[in-house]
Amino acid sequence: MGHVSLTRTEAVGRITMDRPESNNSIDPEMGEELHEAAIELVDDDAVRCIVLTGTGRTFNTGADLGELSADAEDAALLRSMAHQLHGTVSQLHRAPKPVICGINGVAAGGGIGLSVCGDIVLVAESARFEFAYPRIGLSADGGSSYFLPRLVGLRRAQEIAFRDEPVGAEEAVGIGLATEAVPDEEFEDRLAEEAARLAEGPTRAHAATKALLRQSFDRQLDEQMATEASTIAGLSGTDDYQRGVEAFLADESPDFRGE
Amino acid sequence: MGHVSLTRTEAVGRITMDRPESNNSIDPEMGEELHEAAIELVDDDAVRCIVLTGTGRTFNTGADLGELSADAEDAALLRSMAHQLHGTVSQLHRAPKPVICGINGVAAGGGIGLSVCGDIVLVAESARFEFAYPRIGLSADGGSSYFLPRLVGLRRAQEIAFRDEPVGAEEAVGIGLATEAVPDEEFEDRLAEEAARLAEGPTRAHAATKALLRQSFDRQLDEQMATEASTIAGLSGTDDYQRGVEAFLADESPDFRGE
Amino acid sequence: MGHVSLTRTEAVGRITMDRPESNNSIDPEMGEELHEAAIELVDDDAVRCIVLTGTGRTFNTGADLGELSADAEDAALLRSMAHQLHGTVSQLHRAPKPVICGINGVAAGGGIGLSVCGDIVLVAESARFEFAYPRIGLSADGGSSYFLPRLVGLRRAQEIAFRDEPVGAEEAVGIGLATEAVPDEEFEDRLAEEAARLAEGPTRAHAATKALLRQSFDRQLDEQMATEASTIAGLSGTDDYQRGVEAFLADESPDFRGE
Repeated sequence: MGHVSLTRTEAVGRITMDRPESNNSIDPEMGEELHEAAIELVDDDAVRCIVLTGTGRTFNTGADLGELSADAEDAALLRSMAHQLHGTVSQLHRAPKPVICGINGVAAGGGIGLSVCGDIVLVAESARFEFAYPRIGLSADGGSSYFLPRLVGLRRAQEIAFRDEPVGAEEAVGIGLATEAVPDEEFEDRLAEEAARLAEGPTRAHAATKALLRQSFDRQLDEQMATEASTIAGLSGTDDYQRGVEAFLADESPDFRGE
Repeated sequence: MGHVSLTRTEAVGRITMDRPESNNSIDPEMGEELHEAAIELVDDDAVRCIVLTGTGRTFNTGADLGELSADAEDAALLRSMAHQLHGTVSQLHRAPKPVICGINGVAAGGGIGLSVCGDIVLVAESARFEFAYPRIGLSADGGSSYFLPRLVGLRRAQEIAFRDEPVGAEEAVGIGLATEAVPDEEFEDRLAEEAARLAEGPTRAHAATKALLRQSFDRQLDEQMATEASTIAGLSGTDDYQRGVEAFLADESPDFRGE
Repeated sequence: MGHVSLTRTEAVGRITMDRPESNNSIDPEMGEELHEAAIELVDDDAVRCIVLTGTGRTFNTGADLGELSADAEDAALLRSMAHQLHGTVSQLHRAPKPVICGINGVAAGGGIGLSVCGDIVLVAESARFEFAYPRIGLSADGGSSYFLPRLVGLRRAQEIAFRDEPVGAEEAVGIGLATEAVPDEEFEDRLAEEAARLAEGPTRAHAATKALLRQSFDRQLDEQMATEASTIAGLSGTDDYQRGVEAFLADESPDFRGE
């Protein structure tokens, strides 16, 4: 792969976006690589936590505008690049395992969707989020119109969308866009540590909770609780459930296997 | 009742979970008592505010794990205990009167759902919330996957679910999990005071607003406003509406009767 | 118009509620004027940003209670006044252009819905929000039961509804009810400045993002992203898209025309 590297460290699968000469913007080739990398890690049962991050001073800055011709001829290209990006965002948001977005630098435009679609979002203190779409006369994309109201509430989603001012790391954590801000010099270590911890968790239980949270706003209370009940009953057949209860009763740390 | 006491003080009905020798965890008997107590107070029109709280250093710590055998045989028991708990959570969340959760101590596992299902949540400063499910290889239950995204947004719901770190009283208020943190020594007085005030309110109007808030995320704007209009038109026939408008125009405090 | 003035400054259309002798409360005549003013600005393509604000020390205090007779005879009047108010709230929330609510003073009762239905909400530091409905034995109206959970989360919506305590400007911003608090003496200037800036934006893109945010909670991720993709593809045919991309590539500020 040219602009996307895929590495595995024990049960952690890491996707690194690496096209720094273009600020980690996405051309069709990189978009395809990103989508394939996401699918590969989602489907690999040995991978129990996925990390998405970037190299250099940007996380991801969305579509490579150099590909565009600035007129209605762009409709097909915009649609095709959006479709590719959406596939990646969907894979990560629906992955049956925790996903960590490691925001090493600027996340802008289509990079916003990639930066917030995970379960845990660590942000380097020097990084920032920029909505950016209105600067080129476009509307929300990359799932941003889905995620923002759910993460930060409607008012701040509107502020981000219509004022289009950069959101720094601390502010992002304060409003619920990101989970935690990390000093730049500790960023790589903290990212690896968080991933290792999640990869040692009860993967099937995490996947089930992830699915429940994802459908939460579509369900009324009793319907959601009925699904919760079926889900935990089903998990009682897993090896990790047995390990968890036994460790709990023995006051020990569980040794989960993701099975 | 063995582990659940039910007391009435004027128009306040109070359910106290009292099984401190087991950290207020729920065995099937206590689960049944809790459900019956909730139903009794929901159905009693003389009760205009319900309080749910616990004794000792815990509010509620969910299912009594001593009941479990740590294998697939637990499926039926988990399903049955979940069903019981869900009945209680549903009763309280749908009660046609305000419900206050008084979090006197640790709320963990299934206790999370009970701790957040009310309309007002007072937390003693020494109390804390613990998601706890992944520690035993299980997924979100007790309505937690319904409530958390609506209360604290998706990002913090994910943080609580996947990091599973204790959330203290002040933090709980800061993120919108609880309404107010109260010093331990003032907790009982503040809880009684808050309940007395809500019990003196326009109970039918409170019930109507509660129903509107509950269905809010399921409705589009115009549909929700149409329901709001029908609802206030209907309330104009209540005694409390007359008392309220007359008191307002006379610049006096209304003396609501809940009728 | 008697109690509602409508002014245009370049591409900004401003609705000013002006019935200070009655605290900017709404009688049927003013309700009708407000609705007509909203429709006029929504339908006028030359208007690219709408401002809603008030004169004096109140923004809007909801229905004029002097019109009510405090009994079941009020049902028809309440329904009719609610219907009128809802029409205005719906127009502004669905307007295909940014709407700024300029909260110059107290917003109470039905004024709450008007105060939060916009995309950007500026609040003078001396202003405050008061739910007020339970004081007269009524339930949430004016879209408040739709907006509050989406803006501030369910817990704070419940606190506002059941405690019914005033929410000051700074607190309103802190919880996501409003966008920004502004010192009283700078309020008019900041309101005009914000409106001018939004009126110079890519109006059709803003309208599209507004529609996407509005439907967000009703859609699952993939469905929402499919709509996002169709929407940006459609916008590639606009003049503002061409202006935006060209300005971006030339590192200049775009000169959007709203077309």
